[in-house]
Amino acid sequence: MRTVSLAELQAFIARVLQGVGLPEADAVRVAELMSEADARGADGHGVFRLPQYVKRIQAGGMNTRPNIRVIQEKPASALVDGDNAMGHLVMSRAAEIAIEKARTAGIAWVGARNSNHAGPAMLYARMPLAADMIGIYIAVGSANHLPPWGGTEMLLSTNPIAIAVPGEKHDAIVLDMATTNAAYGKVKIKAQRGEQMPEGWMIDRQGQPLTDPKRSSEGFLLPIGGPKGYGLALMFGLLAGTLNGAAFGKDVVDFNADFQSLTNTGHAILAINIAAFADAAAFKQKVDAVWDLMKSSPLLPGVDEIRLPGERSAQIYSERIENGIPIPPDLERGLRELASRVGVAEL
Amino acid sequence: MRTVSLAELQAFIARVLQGVGLPEADAVRVAELMSEADARGADGHGVFRLPQYVKRIQAGGMNTRPNIRVIQEKPASALVDGDNAMGHLVMSRAAEIAIEKARTAGIAWVGARNSNHAGPAMLYARMPLAADMIGIYIAVGSANHLPPWGGTEMLLSTNPIAIAVPGEKHDAIVLDMATTNAAYGKVKIKAQRGEQMPEGWMIDRQGQPLTDPKRSSEGFLLPIGGPKGYGLALMFGLLAGTLNGAAFGKDVVDFNADFQSLTNTGHAILAINIAAFADAAAFKQKVDAVWDLMKSSPLLPGVDEIRLPGERSAQIYSERIENGIPIPPDLERGLRELASRVGVAEL
Repeated sequence: MRTVSLAELQAFIARVLQGVGLPEADAVRVAELMSEADARGADGHGVFRLPQYVKRIQAGGMNTRPNIRVIQEKPASALVDGDNAMGHLVMSRAAEIAIEKARTAGIAWVGARNSNHAGPAMLYARMPLAADMIGIYIAVGSANHLPPWGGTEMLLSTNPIAIAVPGEKHDAIVLDMATTNAAYGKVKIKAQRGEQMPEGWMIDRQGQPLTDPKRSSEGFLLPIGGPKGYGLALMFGLLAGTLNGAAFGKDVVDFNADFQSLTNTGHAILAINIAAFADAAAFKQKVDAVWDLMKSSPLLPGVDEIRLPGERSAQIYSERIENGIPIPPDLERGLRELASRVGVAEL
Repeated sequence: MRTVSLAELQAFIARVLQGVGLPEADAVRVAELMSEADARGADGHGVFRLPQYVKRIQAGGMNTRPNIRVIQEKPASALVDGDNAMGHLVMSRAAEIAIEKARTAGIAWVGARNSNHAGPAMLYARMPLAADMIGIYIAVGSANHLPPWGGTEMLLSTNPIAIAVPGEKHDAIVLDMATTNAAYGKVKIKAQRGEQMPEGWMIDRQGQPLTDPKRSSEGFLLPIGGPKGYGLALMFGLLAGTLNGAAFGKDVVDFNADFQSLTNTGHAILAINIAAFADAAAFKQKVDAVWDLMKSSPLLPGVDEIRLPGERSAQIYSERIENGIPIPPDLERGLRELASRVGVAEL
């Protein structure tokens, strides 16, 4: 399989986005984040999404010249209107504001409306790390795949949460999870590969396990812990959607099916300044100790090792920075067509 | 079964706590919260815990004359040292501070160390509601029942989260959940009743399903969504424990087994001032609309109705305010013995 360097991938994404009308600085910023998603192993949330983003931009469904602005703020909070920009730009700005406010306020929460799909949640939760802060990010997902617990109408998305906590000698511990047992992208991958899904991923409208991913339209995803995951998805929707005046519930536009309607995607980021609670260096050493403690547990039969949240992603990142980012043939073909359509040099 | 009024229960708890040395105002405050827990249906977290609390106080394991104080603060954050007080007192104070700071800062996060078991998470998440705020509460549980995912050593608790969002015509939506499929209290109840547990609650050290609650010491609880629930329990532990200088991991004292050691329990509360993001009345109407939307979903076969998080608890509250709080015979006997031991009038 072909591999490309992070710099090559980033430059390619930037020229495609510039080719469809983004200002250079914005194109570069989105490209940085999208290629970082690939480098960190979030393969379904990086360059894989570029054709879809371009399709939406060309259909007039995203604004390439947005005026992203704060429409309401307090010392520890802000509400950002994304003016229908790419979500990466909106949430980068939101994270910057949260970090800046948390320096003096101790913590800060920034919500966003009129945004769009922003890639993997962990990108934004990670942003406060460099400032010795903890990051928490939640979002309303970009399509509904989940009914309320006990129901059959898909009124909720897999609304994710990411939490990033810095270590000293070890990598940051970074949880990035959907509130369903499987994200919808995993179902699509099973279908592509002609594999069956394990029980617990989906049920059909009779409540029976659905294991054939080709029949996925006949059922829906299952939330983690049953009513608990439903509760989390609902609460994250209220916090990242409703509170910000963003879409939630029936308002959510399926961004895989509709490329023109305003999605009004909502997200929120919380930055916690470690120094407001503890000595940052001492705290990071304690986080290292927690890492080591978890690793020290004896293992269940058949288990190779205990992993910390985000550990695998950090390993992938090291590998890919050294050896390049793999681009599967199908994706490469799609990106070649995209380059030709936009009229920019291929990857 | 005997029922008692909220006022009777509260007065009884208060006189027991005063009887073992709490100042009147503190005894009344704890009694308000413990009886509210019972009234709201958190039967395992209300008066049921009183004998255990008294045992700890009498063993010198909790401080009846604490100096609860802020040891570090910023405009939107504070760290509270509970001076080994009852957790209810520490977290009431923490919630008050968070609400007060969120009035001007937009949001506020208050962490606590040197606290103790504080009853059900929802009590504290609910506190900001009356100020038109959203509450989020997390805690390090008071005993470890969960290994890291793939391991066999119980290094984590069922670290809970509660999130409360106010509505207008409907009750607040209040999620209160452990990060395991079942809380440990549910296992104890199954054992008492001589019932089997469903698969998914616990596994043994070989990784096999454990369904006999009498064998619970041979296994451990399963986190919601497997590695996801493990990740949430870990992150809540870092945020409510490590960040506050409170116990987490091996430091956690099993409060069911050890009545003397300082537990150094950690919690955190976040208050989000709705007015910092939206018109509060309009927001609450939107929350009502989300409630109605979830209720409108067609049902899976065999399901009676869709429930919102906290809906059942609100129904129980109405019933119990009207008809009284049931006191099962075993509990009544225990409370009678307790009253006699402490030398106060029975319930």
